[in-house]
Amino acid sequence: MATAIRLAIVGLGKIARDQHIPAIAGTEGIELAAIASRNASIDGIAHFATLDELLAAAPGIDAVALCTPPQVRHAQAAAALKAGKHVLLEKPPGATVSELPPLIAAARQTGRTLFATWHSRFASAVEPARTFLASREIKSVAVEWKEDVRVWHPGQAWIWEPGGLGVFDPGINALSILTRILPRPFFLTQAELSFPRNRAAPIAADLAFSDDTGLPIRAEFDWRQTGPQTWDIRVETDTGRLTLSSGGSRLEHDDRNLIDEKQAEYRGIYRRFVELIANGVSDVDLSPLVHVADAFMLGRRRDVEPFIED
Amino acid sequence: MATAIRLAIVGLGKIARDQHIPAIAGTEGIELAAIASRNASIDGIAHFATLDELLAAAPGIDAVALCTPPQVRHAQAAAALKAGKHVLLEKPPGATVSELPPLIAAARQTGRTLFATWHSRFASAVEPARTFLASREIKSVAVEWKEDVRVWHPGQAWIWEPGGLGVFDPGINALSILTRILPRPFFLTQAELSFPRNRAAPIAADLAFSDDTGLPIRAEFDWRQTGPQTWDIRVETDTGRLTLSSGGSRLEHDDRNLIDEKQAEYRGIYRRFVELIANGVSDVDLSPLVHVADAFMLGRRRDVEPFIED
Repeated sequence: MATAIRLAIVGLGKIARDQHIPAIAGTEGIELAAIASRNASIDGIAHFATLDELLAAAPGIDAVALCTPPQVRHAQAAAALKAGKHVLLEKPPGATVSELPPLIAAARQTGRTLFATWHSRFASAVEPARTFLASREIKSVAVEWKEDVRVWHPGQAWIWEPGGLGVFDPGINALSILTRILPRPFFLTQAELSFPRNRAAPIAADLAFSDDTGLPIRAEFDWRQTGPQTWDIRVETDTGRLTLSSGGSRLEHDDRNLIDEKQAEYRGIYRRFVELIANGVSDVDLSPLVHVADAFMLGRRRDVEPFIED
Repeated sequence: MATAIRLAIVGLGKIARDQHIPAIAGTEGIELAAIASRNASIDGIAHFATLDELLAAAPGIDAVALCTPPQVRHAQAAAALKAGKHVLLEKPPGATVSELPPLIAAARQTGRTLFATWHSRFASAVEPARTFLASREIKSVAVEWKEDVRVWHPGQAWIWEPGGLGVFDPGINALSILTRILPRPFFLTQAELSFPRNRAAPIAADLAFSDDTGLPIRAEFDWRQTGPQTWDIRVETDTGRLTLSSGGSRLEHDDRNLIDEKQAEYRGIYRRFVELIANGVSDVDLSPLVHVADAFMLGRRRDVEPFIED
């Protein structure tokens, strides 16, 4: 049996505790060996205040998972690759698109794996949806990604800062699914972004995309949804409507249920990371982040009421 | 002697009249054979109101130069490639980054040339600057790109609309030079964009970039410059300061003048277009546009006084 990959988590926040730690514990071939976090630690796991201290102490770590905010991730990824570590990036993989190609080149040079993860692509219904759509004529696509920011991002100031992406933080999950399941590349044609007057990032976005066949794709992202939450993609095809809902865990064809399975997306991520390392390859798809950058560049800004967290 | 490429210009605005038409007239191997423009025409040249009408009438055109605003360019490029024409794109090559890969794929499929031009790269001092910097250690880079929008873009409403890029319309010229002359890729780390309260695009931008060696790169773009205009790039190196000025036509090493030559950038563009077509290849570098998209995504917005054109 091969020795397990010894992994360090950098940034012990909500996503690391809720998702990464249980997924690592449940995945063969990888184990949590260290934490770098200024404020938090876990009993029995080697702890360092910063990634630099961790790399300097070098406790036999093979790989790092960066769960820090995107604004600081590039420097950490570059340092870890330079120190010969494999690197897993939470989504989004960076605060800019341009910072990624140098990391891809560094991974190639050092022979290490760089994995830019898109967790929603590991939801159970995504690959079946892709297969279904590959052989259909697609007529239109409608995305509704509406959630309550107060529930999902309590007190997370960085998401409202430049680089934090605002409502595109969840919206990029929808885009990561869409870029996976649609058979052709698509591009933004129009966008309206709603910015609370007191914030530097949008709270809602209304997006129109198309592709070279003229396919109409509409996406609505909104962080002001109270009550039931909506993470749905509806695709009208020549053989009926395909509905991917609950963030990608349910799939219906017209009224027939095909899949309804709350899957541990992060187990899929760590299985894939182990596999990428074993095969000596990287996996970096920038297309969801490019769509978001395009939306900021092409989007018309609308001022909306201030967002005040209690 | 090979037959000259029969070219149509689409969009007979200021840039087409000032630059494209004289450059085409002065370039061997290519000739102006048609115009598609809703409002303007040239005596003695076949005229069509739209590109679609031109393509339908098919007057033996081999190639099109798209001088229309970026917001409409994708559909025109796709139609022209589909009709088997070579395509030259004015800068910026599109209103989004994502719309370009499908065009690159279409050019490959049809065996036609797609040329995303960056005219400033054809200024006389750019290649010498690149050669100079290839063998120097670079300490810092400072870009100042400051001009009077009233002089250079009188009445051009589209540059203030989403997709028109505002001050990045000239600023992307600096970025097209920088991405050519610096030996390593760089990426944005911080940005402040100044938006006139009555406009949807920035009038000024203050940008900080870096690369994986930590090189400090600062760029200031400003459209409010009256009096002398500034299009300068200063690079501090281990063997003194290299100054690229006048938009890339002057080069100085410390106080020594190396080049001072007002060059016809667009002749370089058309020479290269003829060459690309002869070799059956495309040339599409998206990095300047990616930097601009990054700046809109990462940039902090500042409201400034309204811009009112007399």
